[in-house]
Amino acid sequence: MSDNPLLAMGQAAREASYQMLGLGAKQKNALLQAICQQLRQHEAAILAANAIDMAAAEQAGLQGAMLDRLLLNSDRLAAIIADIETVIALADPVGEELESRLLDNGMRLSRRRIPLGVLGVIYEARPNVTVDVAVLALKTGNAAILRGGKETLHSNRALLVAIHDALATQALPKAAVQLIDNPDRALVTALLQLDSHVDMLIPRGGAGLHRLCLEQSRIPVITGGIGICHMFVDQAAQLDKVADLVVNAKVQRPTVCNALDTLLVHEAIAPRLLPALATTLRGLGVELRACPQAHALLGERAVVAGPEDFSQEWLALVLGVKLVAGVDEAIAHIRAHSSEHSESILTDDMSTAERFVNAINSSAVYVNASTRFTDGSQFGLGAEVAVSTQKLHARGPMGLDALTTYKWIGQGHYTARS
Amino acid sequence: MSDNPLLAMGQAAREASYQMLGLGAKQKNALLQAICQQLRQHEAAILAANAIDMAAAEQAGLQGAMLDRLLLNSDRLAAIIADIETVIALADPVGEELESRLLDNGMRLSRRRIPLGVLGVIYEARPNVTVDVAVLALKTGNAAILRGGKETLHSNRALLVAIHDALATQALPKAAVQLIDNPDRALVTALLQLDSHVDMLIPRGGAGLHRLCLEQSRIPVITGGIGICHMFVDQAAQLDKVADLVVNAKVQRPTVCNALDTLLVHEAIAPRLLPALATTLRGLGVELRACPQAHALLGERAVVAGPEDFSQEWLALVLGVKLVAGVDEAIAHIRAHSSEHSESILTDDMSTAERFVNAINSSAVYVNASTRFTDGSQFGLGAEVAVSTQKLHARGPMGLDALTTYKWIGQGHYTARS
Repeated sequence: MSDNPLLAMGQAAREASYQMLGLGAKQKNALLQAICQQLRQHEAAILAANAIDMAAAEQAGLQGAMLDRLLLNSDRLAAIIADIETVIALADPVGEELESRLLDNGMRLSRRRIPLGVLGVIYEARPNVTVDVAVLALKTGNAAILRGGKETLHSNRALLVAIHDALATQALPKAAVQLIDNPDRALVTALLQLDSHVDMLIPRGGAGLHRLCLEQSRIPVITGGIGICHMFVDQAAQLDKVADLVVNAKVQRPTVCNALDTLLVHEAIAPRLLPALATTLRGLGVELRACPQAHALLGERAVVAGPEDFSQEWLALVLGVKLVAGVDEAIAHIRAHSSEHSESILTDDMSTAERFVNAINSSAVYVNASTRFTDGSQFGLGAEVAVSTQKLHARGPMGLDALTTYKWIGQGHYTARS
Repeated sequence: MSDNPLLAMGQAAREASYQMLGLGAKQKNALLQAICQQLRQHEAAILAANAIDMAAAEQAGLQGAMLDRLLLNSDRLAAIIADIETVIALADPVGEELESRLLDNGMRLSRRRIPLGVLGVIYEARPNVTVDVAVLALKTGNAAILRGGKETLHSNRALLVAIHDALATQALPKAAVQLIDNPDRALVTALLQLDSHVDMLIPRGGAGLHRLCLEQSRIPVITGGIGICHMFVDQAAQLDKVADLVVNAKVQRPTVCNALDTLLVHEAIAPRLLPALATTLRGLGVELRACPQAHALLGERAVVAGPEDFSQEWLALVLGVKLVAGVDEAIAHIRAHSSEHSESILTDDMSTAERFVNAINSSAVYVNASTRFTDGSQFGLGAEVAVSTQKLHARGPMGLDALTTYKWIGQGHYTARS
């Protein structure tokens, strides 16, 4: 620990977090307003820095979605600022009294929501996440240590200058938001071991990053954002309504974690449902990977699924299709393959739906709905920090509350335990 | 993972957890009643097994409290059974609907409390913990994998036979409660890496065990049970009431985590308070380790504190004593030395109390009360799984709720995301 290269950064973040926790909602919102203002004032510098990142990324051969995520322009900066205004409008969860009781001995015992302290966030090459995470952390009275993708280093540095200038206008320490602005991967490991100064780690990235964090982190990790999502079409589903939901779940936005990955179909209705559904999906550019029984119904509209195809988060227009004998086989398949993100059953049979909902303990379980709803704004949380698929602290879309914890407060009258 | 020696145990626990989560409160309470009955029926075998452990422990030179913790007798078994009856009487948190809303699109969105799944518990040589943990896990619909101290191996095996017999009477799988009954420490490491089959790890033991879990566990760990607890006596405290609270916090039960470790005294009142207080404490057998300024007031009643003395959980009749210039120095000292378990301020000055309560984010913060209150039964939680000092999931005394998580349930009408 004493030779951790991030030790000074961690200590500074901890000190800054002590100043942040003393702020009221009004002061924190003034800070967020100042960030909006500084982002506007620094627009030229930010876009110039982003242009350097973009040029380097093109040189390095980045293409398509990767390059698009990297890009900042005037409109996108305005959208980032608009998102901050949304966060300003949200209620501040800090200070909320979660419960309060008078104990028999006269002590008033209450539980009060407080900031977590210092957040560590590791994320991919998306400059908007830098602002997003900083703003959510500050809104909830936390300090943050950020480690963004190396492709956005110049953009992130320029954004940090704006955030630091905003902190300065409010007489708050720069260390409230710090950036690990060295792409050396050894610093990721160093961050994971900074458990005495970082209270929660949020990895926003692929399975490899999550695995690394699980294996190496001494800091509690929020696992999530990876969805191997299932939809089970029961024999009692309204078959004429199935296609719309499958298309919505698979095609609306295939690159996100709540998009559908595997369609499970009750074998009794598969002959009536699957051929036409496959034609629809093929027409929308969806490639089908089918189990042998489904393949027998689909012929050239599908390829035979390989052994790993039912353990994939596709993030693309690909869909696994598998026939099952009923809800129990669907449950068993989901338990074996799901990442516990989002699963759905389509059925009009209430007892089948209940069986599915009780047996499946994914973060979000739907009856007659698309998996695409697992999202902070859809759930009405206002902001989304991440989508957790783990079981501790927070599950599913994480709002501002998930960046807080609580303490017990006992107010006595020189009260001793008897 | 595939060569983890506990893999089969983990898989069996996961399967058993699926059966457990389907049980209602009545069935779970019937199981706990069956455990009471089987413990009574197996009393002779349990006490005989415990006698083997006791003989081996005496042979190995164990003494005093260690030996006493190991001992089972008829009265203690009856007390264990009485504790189960208490748990039976508690409300079952599983199934509780934490919130429920109708979204604009007509979807009913609710959040339902569910079991965590599989708990891993590592604990010291206390056979009562074996039953305690198994009962709390089963009450909340979880499966558990237990690893008790090697000194209690025979006792734990005998207790497990009773628990397994009880599971059998309810047609439930033995794998719902499993014991790692091999003292090889490599199996602790194996358990820490069983993250795909164990959902939460509770280490109940010393700082070394917690450190091992933080460093090696891929499973979320509940850190806690270690209390470096402080009491700050402000200048505005009612001085005639201080001694009772200090004695209560330090002397009532010095071996527990909520006992007082360091007394911070405002320098303005130290000359009036400390000499008499030190005499009282010395009379009760408390050794005082004082900062130089306090030592100057106490002379032979104290020794000068060494550099590590203010970072100790004493678990004994030893107390650190330090003078501070005011509440800010007390806050800074606590932030630097506390394990975030329990801290207390004694003062009649409301703004000083508020400053202390707002600045100190330990799991429990008291005003004019003993630190000894941080306890599940004192807080009215019914049962206590552990005392958490971390910030995620649960803080302070953990009741049955802390062995649950939740899922989101969306009930639609073939609802697609627009």
